[in-house]
Amino acid sequence: MKNYIKHDDWKVIEEGFKPEWNRITESLCSLGNGYMGHRGNFEEEYSGDTLQGSYLAGIYYPDKTRVGWWKNGYPEYFAKVLNSVNWIGINITIDGEKLDLAKADILYFRRELNMEGGYLERTVEAEVDAGRIKIVSKRFCSIKRREVGAVSYSITPLDFSGKINVEPYLDFDVENEDSNYDEKFWDQVSEEIHQTEGYVSAITRKTEYLVCAGMKYDVLLNDKKADIAPYAHKREKFVSSDTDVQVSEGETLTVLKYAAIVTSENHDKNNLQAEAERVLKAAHDSGFEALFQEQKSAWAAKWKESDIKIDGDVAAQQGIRFNIFHLNQTYTGEDERLNIGPKGFTGEKYGGSTYWDTEAYCLPFYLATADPKISRNLLVYRHRHLQKAIENAAKLGFKDGAALYPMVTMTGEECHNEWEITFEEIHRNGAIAYAIYDYIRYTGDQDYLVTHGLEVLIAISRFWSQRVNFSGAKKKYVMLGVTGPNEYENNINNNWHTNYMAVWTMKYTLEAIKYVKGNFLESYSLLAAHTDFKEDKETARWKDIIANMYFPYDAERDVYLQQDGFLDKELLPASDIPKDEYPICQNWSWDRILRSCYIKQADTLQGMYFFEDDFDKETIARHFDFYEPMTVHESSLSPCIHAILAARIGRKKKAYEMYLRTARLDLDDYNNDTEDGLHITSMGGTWMAFVKGLCGVALDNGTLSLNPFLPKNWNACAFRIRFRGNHLSIRVERNSVIVQNETDQPISLLIFGKEHTIPASSNVEAAMEELVSA
Amino acid sequence: MKNYIKHDDWKVIEEGFKPEWNRITESLCSLGNGYMGHRGNFEEEYSGDTLQGSYLAGIYYPDKTRVGWWKNGYPEYFAKVLNSVNWIGINITIDGEKLDLAKADILYFRRELNMEGGYLERTVEAEVDAGRIKIVSKRFCSIKRREVGAVSYSITPLDFSGKINVEPYLDFDVENEDSNYDEKFWDQVSEEIHQTEGYVSAITRKTEYLVCAGMKYDVLLNDKKADIAPYAHKREKFVSSDTDVQVSEGETLTVLKYAAIVTSENHDKNNLQAEAERVLKAAHDSGFEALFQEQKSAWAAKWKESDIKIDGDVAAQQGIRFNIFHLNQTYTGEDERLNIGPKGFTGEKYGGSTYWDTEAYCLPFYLATADPKISRNLLVYRHRHLQKAIENAAKLGFKDGAALYPMVTMTGEECHNEWEITFEEIHRNGAIAYAIYDYIRYTGDQDYLVTHGLEVLIAISRFWSQRVNFSGAKKKYVMLGVTGPNEYENNINNNWHTNYMAVWTMKYTLEAIKYVKGNFLESYSLLAAHTDFKEDKETARWKDIIANMYFPYDAERDVYLQQDGFLDKELLPASDIPKDEYPICQNWSWDRILRSCYIKQADTLQGMYFFEDDFDKETIARHFDFYEPMTVHESSLSPCIHAILAARIGRKKKAYEMYLRTARLDLDDYNNDTEDGLHITSMGGTWMAFVKGLCGVALDNGTLSLNPFLPKNWNACAFRIRFRGNHLSIRVERNSVIVQNETDQPISLLIFGKEHTIPASSNVEAAMEELVSA
Repeated sequence: MKNYIKHDDWKVIEEGFKPEWNRITESLCSLGNGYMGHRGNFEEEYSGDTLQGSYLAGIYYPDKTRVGWWKNGYPEYFAKVLNSVNWIGINITIDGEKLDLAKADILYFRRELNMEGGYLERTVEAEVDAGRIKIVSKRFCSIKRREVGAVSYSITPLDFSGKINVEPYLDFDVENEDSNYDEKFWDQVSEEIHQTEGYVSAITRKTEYLVCAGMKYDVLLNDKKADIAPYAHKREKFVSSDTDVQVSEGETLTVLKYAAIVTSENHDKNNLQAEAERVLKAAHDSGFEALFQEQKSAWAAKWKESDIKIDGDVAAQQGIRFNIFHLNQTYTGEDERLNIGPKGFTGEKYGGSTYWDTEAYCLPFYLATADPKISRNLLVYRHRHLQKAIENAAKLGFKDGAALYPMVTMTGEECHNEWEITFEEIHRNGAIAYAIYDYIRYTGDQDYLVTHGLEVLIAISRFWSQRVNFSGAKKKYVMLGVTGPNEYENNINNNWHTNYMAVWTMKYTLEAIKYVKGNFLESYSLLAAHTDFKEDKETARWKDIIANMYFPYDAERDVYLQQDGFLDKELLPASDIPKDEYPICQNWSWDRILRSCYIKQADTLQGMYFFEDDFDKETIARHFDFYEPMTVHESSLSPCIHAILAARIGRKKKAYEMYLRTARLDLDDYNNDTEDGLHITSMGGTWMAFVKGLCGVALDNGTLSLNPFLPKNWNACAFRIRFRGNHLSIRVERNSVIVQNETDQPISLLIFGKEHTIPASSNVEAAMEELVSA
Repeated sequence: MKNYIKHDDWKVIEEGFKPEWNRITESLCSLGNGYMGHRGNFEEEYSGDTLQGSYLAGIYYPDKTRVGWWKNGYPEYFAKVLNSVNWIGINITIDGEKLDLAKADILYFRRELNMEGGYLERTVEAEVDAGRIKIVSKRFCSIKRREVGAVSYSITPLDFSGKINVEPYLDFDVENEDSNYDEKFWDQVSEEIHQTEGYVSAITRKTEYLVCAGMKYDVLLNDKKADIAPYAHKREKFVSSDTDVQVSEGETLTVLKYAAIVTSENHDKNNLQAEAERVLKAAHDSGFEALFQEQKSAWAAKWKESDIKIDGDVAAQQGIRFNIFHLNQTYTGEDERLNIGPKGFTGEKYGGSTYWDTEAYCLPFYLATADPKISRNLLVYRHRHLQKAIENAAKLGFKDGAALYPMVTMTGEECHNEWEITFEEIHRNGAIAYAIYDYIRYTGDQDYLVTHGLEVLIAISRFWSQRVNFSGAKKKYVMLGVTGPNEYENNINNNWHTNYMAVWTMKYTLEAIKYVKGNFLESYSLLAAHTDFKEDKETARWKDIIANMYFPYDAERDVYLQQDGFLDKELLPASDIPKDEYPICQNWSWDRILRSCYIKQADTLQGMYFFEDDFDKETIARHFDFYEPMTVHESSLSPCIHAILAARIGRKKKAYEMYLRTARLDLDDYNNDTEDGLHITSMGGTWMAFVKGLCGVALDNGTLSLNPFLPKNWNACAFRIRFRGNHLSIRVERNSVIVQNETDQPISLLIFGKEHTIPASSNVEAAMEELVSA
């Protein structure tokens, strides 16, 4: 855990350069706009440790994986999010010396992510051979014009006059650090550079995504356009032009660099450079300042919808905004082909692909803070992939339209290849079914079942019904060879979570069939014909499984067991693990981890979170007390679920502890891996920990319900949610909860279990109550 | 299953070229001498499908493995046996046309491995542009001079006269097909070529094995030395010289090519070429015919010791000799640094490394057919690696001198990296302990315990005692997270075989301590001090585990269960699997295989084979009847164990069926993978299936015992074994068993349970008895 980021309500601040943690700060300071993003790298050359990263949503490379042994059904590749064109780069040479902060004497340094306005700013004073200089740079990825990025880079000689050479460039000659074969993934297509305007087009190997990047820049001396004669350069996949400017002591040389990045996913590939030129010209015509104001306004609108305010705890305030900021940077819901990669635009790891994280941890955020269309697009993404999920299941030997959604995907195809994950971590299939339920109960959009949902549900239920088998020994249906959410167990039998998910999916599918058949018979008949659905026969088996599924259980403790044989392990508390052996995934052999009782992330408890209505508080508390002490929370997705459940059972201290751990996971580098990128999907979890956990927002038979508590050191907190057409502003104070209905329709809701109806554009105030510990 | 190899008592014959099966025939026709080997490739160029392979024992490359996800404790590399210098190659050009049998019209073709004499012969008649030619080639790897290989290659124009160019070469510019990064593993060191004599030295990357290959050749026209003026060529890692010879119709041009391959493992690396020159000169001075006679005599001696004769069944005769031939080619026991790779010198797969196969399947062959020194060297190999095995265990978190021998190794280090194998398939550790027991009981060499054995046993027992844990639920010691011999199960709990192995090792170690302490107290004290052995404390725990180990058991069937939860599977017979889905490892997903009940190879039954004295025939029969029908025998190591057990319980038909399957596994390509190379270690299993199975050779409390039966279609069979200084020739006929004591000391043995004492150089004849089925 590190603690070098300065606390601030709206900013992430590194004050004083920490080169040893540069990769971490680069991750933290990543910028994105749902379409493209860039790590918080420096504009000028830097020879110290850095992970240069620029990414485009959905642009990936299927990197061939080779392992010593290949098992049947393994996918051939692991999808890699592609490091793409570096469009921020500006080389600076001062009196013949290339500026490189790794070699300069740094006198002052401040790197600052401005979350309110959505931009990155950096101020540096450094001593170079020629003398002291000051650099101020500012940049952003436009959220309004998603194909545009802009940089303002100023340099001032403080105690000398000299010749400064500036060389803005576009560099497509980039690599992925995680390339399996050290190969480059981009091939050159074309290059053009003329004066201060240049273009590079490149194409990805294998996947053949064509991307054109353009840049155009102005050079200003003391805010006036300088008279320059740039000299153009071309290398493979690289263009630049450079120019010398004589700068006197105290004068400021500024480069305003505009970039446009367009791809064949959105434009005619034969006309791509012309598109880039068009986008670039419009940006340049607007000018940096106008673009910057546009950016700040756009972010203001986003914050209006999704901000969470915490009064009295700057660290917590910074933490929650950091999460919301990055969620909004990563996914905007405009493009149903896109999804949320676990690292967003902040690093290479996890391939930038889609995991079950989206459904389980991110969907609730978008449901509550954005137009329902946006959440719906996340669901449609999976519907679009249904055929591939059916093919994926068929590769494993399933049949008759059974679907297994991939663990990791770019295009619907599985692109991960550890058998214990890919073949076995099948609870993901349940999460995808659950998201349909979650979306519909939150938005009330029952039509989705008819047009998309039921088709997916039937395919998933078919999978579950084939995946179980009847155990002659137990006289029950069992599910063998799975990996639950707790990936510190592999190939286990009867994972309670997965068995529960399977049964739930089949039950919900039966309900959905009833609804669609009852209300939209024609649609139902078409669907049944289209999917060759043999309702009587298939549902009879589902019902038999629902009635006779086996769930591992310990009568002595009255708890469901995570899996068969769990009690054969040495049951030790995580507090027994010496501090210096954390995280155990980096310090223990896999063998030792697998045999231990230690739980990576909520597993049985994850199921109890999903199906909160099925369990009373005492039951949840009993399971919480059994499992949580053995949980090491080495998945970023773990603390949030524990925060929510702890709040639910009235364990305020634990809830707050878990909330803090998720809220500042990356800012404080809890898991010692922020250098690889941020845990974007767990940020959805953080939001849930706040809204569903601390503030106790839940649905009680379709009615919105609030059971908030205020951590001791907070004065108040406030947030805003949408719910079925209503916008509500909720403020939790020490003694009262105030809910403002911002819409012109009334709404009924429960506060501490009591029903309140709030007329249009009115508010209600209720007294705070103490949560009682179960 | 293929059936194109002609049946013959002493030869493996391909008659008529089968290019589609060329890789299979190349594997079958591999030659080796324990030091080096070469697949049955053609000498002249061949553009068709072929796996060129030349290998040197112990010369390997640590090929870096990359997988999407790395788990702590994974080894960094996978050891690859190196494809090494091609020393057999001779390019032939006839009137300007390069000879390539893929392009010629083949009129007659016969490739023939002569197992009696240890050489490969090929006769071809083909139509090329110039006319009809006949080729006769013969080659061998000298078993007497292990650094020497020789080729005789003759070509006769049958219906034309023309100019034939011959170009013998040495080519070190070779690749491994299984290279992870398509890189070449050899770097050039030096080259020299002068007239008909040339040398190439190359060094392996990373491991830096230096190898020098030399060649020298003569060209003969009608058996008389031709007058030639060769023209020398050099390329990177390649030397050759070529010469034109005018050959008239009916004349025969012959190249006699001698090769010497020497390595820095056996010679001063600064003087390697001089060593090659010395070896080569001696070979050349002897001449091809003398070397060839030497070879045949050496093989005659080997056959005298280890031949098995089967009268009345050519297919069976060919099968068993094929196995014995390759075992003798692969390991000669002269070098304690070497071991037996699962593919020997016949292919790249399995990295040419050492597996538990050596101890479990090969040791008995060498015990019975060679000087005890040779078996002892196989044991010493592991003793040499003890420190590495302790380090290997330490990497996984074990301590205090616990040893885990690697699953796959070249140098004692683990060099495989599937966690489910490397970390979990720990029964191998038991097999290594068992080999010590097996060697000592067979040879009577108790001293081995004192000098080597006990140290290894203590280290392995330490591992077991740390690997188990006490289950609060079962009130027994359990062993979680293992993979048994049946690799179609992974990460299971309480594998009966492994649990049994663990307990047995600790018991045997206690006995060994008692013996060494009682008879060699000083050695014992030294060992205890050296290994920091706390006898009282450590053995107390062992005894507690021995007394309280858990073994999964089903009371209803009265069988031990392969693992916890085995009865939750659908228990279906392998005969239910459609024929076209065999082998399931190539047709089913890993997921499906893992969840099925199907057993890859003997697991519980493997334990019952090892510890035959612990179980009566009825018990073995009960387990055989439970497990064998679910066994798919997709490991080449499976049928042999079943053959032995089937014979033991009197299931003659099954025993013979299993024997046939192992005996002709490669010749008939049962598992559809002979193209990758031969299953060398399973050949030891075949020998066991014959000697221990059909002939019922066993030890009954230290007394040799015979319980043979003769398959219906055999007239008689005969074999020879050594036992504690005695040499016995055993002949099984329809009505009697005749045992000849070839040594000058008497021996007592049991035939069908009755004791017979055979005086020196005498024989005894006993009537055949029927095996009674249990």
